[in-house]
Amino acid sequence: MTSCASADLLALASLSLLPVSWVRLIAERLRAGEAPAAVFARLLAERSAADPDRFAWVADRARKAIAQAEAEAIGMLAWSDVAYPPALAAIVDPPPLLWVRGSLDALAAQPVVAIVGARAASAYGLAVSERLAGDLASRGVMIVSGLARGVDSAAHRGALAAGGVTVAVLGSGVDVLYPPEHAPLARAIVAQQGAVASEFVPGTPPNPAFFPQRNRIISGLARAVVVIEAGEKSGSLITARAALEQGRDVLAVPGNVLTGRNRGAHGLLRDGAKIVETADDILEELNVSVGMNLAAVEGASEPAKAARPVDAVLGCLAPGEPCDLDEIAERSGLSSARLLPRLFELEVQGLVRRAGGGRFVRN
Amino acid sequence: MTSCASADLLALASLSLLPVSWVRLIAERLRAGEAPAAVFARLLAERSAADPDRFAWVADRARKAIAQAEAEAIGMLAWSDVAYPPALAAIVDPPPLLWVRGSLDALAAQPVVAIVGARAASAYGLAVSERLAGDLASRGVMIVSGLARGVDSAAHRGALAAGGVTVAVLGSGVDVLYPPEHAPLARAIVAQQGAVASEFVPGTPPNPAFFPQRNRIISGLARAVVVIEAGEKSGSLITARAALEQGRDVLAVPGNVLTGRNRGAHGLLRDGAKIVETADDILEELNVSVGMNLAAVEGASEPAKAARPVDAVLGCLAPGEPCDLDEIAERSGLSSARLLPRLFELEVQGLVRRAGGGRFVRN
Repeated sequence: MTSCASADLLALASLSLLPVSWVRLIAERLRAGEAPAAVFARLLAERSAADPDRFAWVADRARKAIAQAEAEAIGMLAWSDVAYPPALAAIVDPPPLLWVRGSLDALAAQPVVAIVGARAASAYGLAVSERLAGDLASRGVMIVSGLARGVDSAAHRGALAAGGVTVAVLGSGVDVLYPPEHAPLARAIVAQQGAVASEFVPGTPPNPAFFPQRNRIISGLARAVVVIEAGEKSGSLITARAALEQGRDVLAVPGNVLTGRNRGAHGLLRDGAKIVETADDILEELNVSVGMNLAAVEGASEPAKAARPVDAVLGCLAPGEPCDLDEIAERSGLSSARLLPRLFELEVQGLVRRAGGGRFVRN
Repeated sequence: MTSCASADLLALASLSLLPVSWVRLIAERLRAGEAPAAVFARLLAERSAADPDRFAWVADRARKAIAQAEAEAIGMLAWSDVAYPPALAAIVDPPPLLWVRGSLDALAAQPVVAIVGARAASAYGLAVSERLAGDLASRGVMIVSGLARGVDSAAHRGALAAGGVTVAVLGSGVDVLYPPEHAPLARAIVAQQGAVASEFVPGTPPNPAFFPQRNRIISGLARAVVVIEAGEKSGSLITARAALEQGRDVLAVPGNVLTGRNRGAHGLLRDGAKIVETADDILEELNVSVGMNLAAVEGASEPAKAARPVDAVLGCLAPGEPCDLDEIAERSGLSSARLLPRLFELEVQGLVRRAGGGRFVRN
C-alpha cells in the first residue's frame, strides 16, 4: 500500500515504535534527507546506549507488525508517500508512518474539519456534534475525530448518517479499538469509504499517555478544529492548543454556563476562537465555497484564464523542484493554513502535484 | 425633591411631554445654557407652528403631572440636579427630567450593571439572570433593568433576593406598571431602597414605541450591559447598540445553539462582546474591585499620599470650574467609560464633587 521500499518501510515501522516524544527529532532528520534506517540506528545509538538489545527487539517487533498489517489488510502510509496528507506532513512532528484501516483516499480528502469534545457529553453536546458533522459532511467536508465516547463518536455518526466520509484517529493500534463498544462504529466508518488511522503499530493497547499525543494528528489532518463541551481540563483543549501551534483555526460551540460543561469551550471563545452556531460558521472560517473545486476545473477551460496574472503561490514554484509547505510559505508570505486550500485548488486544476513528504511540485 | 426652581421644573416637565425624538436637541440646548422654558418655547415655535394650542395643552399637562407627582410622592430628578446620575447625564440624549418612585440615591449608586434579555425566556435564561444579578448585587453592584417579563424581572428578583439595590426603568409613567402582574415586584424594588424610574410623565400608558427609547436610559445608567437570551430581533440588541454608542461595555451570556434563543447574544459575542459565565467575568470588565471605595478612603490618610504624582483625571480639573464628561475626556484622553469609575473614586476620596448637569468640579 505504501510506495516506499521495504527496507525503508521496516525502518519507518521501527521508528513508529520509539517513544512518541522523539517524533519531532525523527521528523527533522527525515526532512533533512537522512534515510529512515539511518535515523533509527543513530537515534538508538544516541539514546539507548545502555540497552544494546533494544535495536533487535524493536526491529523484530516492526517486522511482525508489517506482516500483521499485510495479513489483515492494514494500510501503511509513509511520511514520504505522495498520498500522505500534506496538512499532516506540514506539522513539526508528523508520524513517520500511519497505519490505516480503510480508505487511504479518505485521509487525503479536503477540506477536513476536526470535531472534538467531552467524553461524558450531555444530550446537547451529542446533538450539536452530530448535527454539525452531518451538515459539514453533506457539503463534502471530511470529518476527523478520535472515536471516543461522547462528542467524538457523535461526530463520526453524524458524518456517516449524512453519507459522508470520516476518519477516526486512535491512541492505540488500529486493530485494538477503544472503547471496545465502538467497534461497530469503526467498521461502519471503514465501510463508508472512511478510515481508522493510528501512528501506533497494530497490537498497541490504548494508553492514557498516548491520547494527548494522538490529538496532534487529529488537528494536524484538519484545517479547523471545532470544540464542543470541553470542560476546564478537557483533552479537547490539548487538541485546540495543538491546532493553534499548527496554524489551524480553532472554533468553539457555546452552551450552558451553569453546568461547568462548557468552561473550556468558553475559555477558547474568550481567547479569540470563533463562535460556532451552525455549519455555515465553520464553512465561512474555512474560507472555501464547497463545490469550488468543480468551478475551478470548469474555469480552467475559459479563454480568460491565459490573461490572468501569475498566481502568488504558483509563482513560488518551479517545475521539477518540489517544495515543502514551509518553503512555499516563506516564499509566498502566506501561512500554511492559507496555503493548503490554495495548493489543493492548484492540484485540482492540474497545475501542481504532490511529490511526497508533504511537498508540492509545479507541473 | 428636585433642587430646581419651580418655573424650571414646569418647563422640564413640559419638555418631558414632547416627542422623544426631540430629546437630543433638547439636551443640546440645555447643555448650551439655554433656560428650560426658553428651550420649550423655541422648540414649539419651530416645530408646531401649525398648532398654536399645543403650548397651552402641554404646559397644563405638565402642571397636572407635577401636582400628581407631589401628591403621590413621585420624585422628580432634573437634568441639572447634583443627584442626577452622571453616567446618564453623559449620554447625548439624557432625559431632561426623570420621574422616580423610590430612592433617588439608588439611581446614583455605583457601580451599575444592566441586565437585559428575552421576555419569553427559558428556564435557563431566567436562572442565569437571577444568579448573575444576585451575585453582583451581593457585591454592591446596582442592577438596572426594564421590569419586563422574563430576563428583566428575573434580574430584579435576583438582586432583591441578595439584599441588593435595583432600579427598573419603564416605558410608561412610573404609576402605570407594565406588565401589570409585576406591580408587586415594583413595590418590592421600592421597598428595598431601589427605584422605579421613567422619563415619561405619570399617567403615560405603555406604548411599544417607547420601549426602544427607554432602553437608552437602561444602558445610560450602567457601566456595562449584560445580554441574556436575546434572539435575532430582540429589543435587548437595541439596548446593546445604545450601550456601544454610549461607550459602555457590552457583555453576553452564551447558551444553546440549537434553539435560536441565543442567536442575538451569540451575534454580540461574534462582534467582540465579552463572554459571561459568572459575575466575576462582569466585575473584571468593570475593572473595579468592589470594596475599593473603602480602601480608597483609608488610603487617603496615608502619609505616602502627598508624594503621589498628580492624578491624570484630577489634573484636568480646576477648583471652581465644573467640567462635563466630554471636556474631561478630551483633556485626559480617557473614554467616558474609563473616566466614570475614576471620578467616583475621586468623589469618595473627597477630591471632586458633582456640580449638576453631569458635571464635576475639583474641591
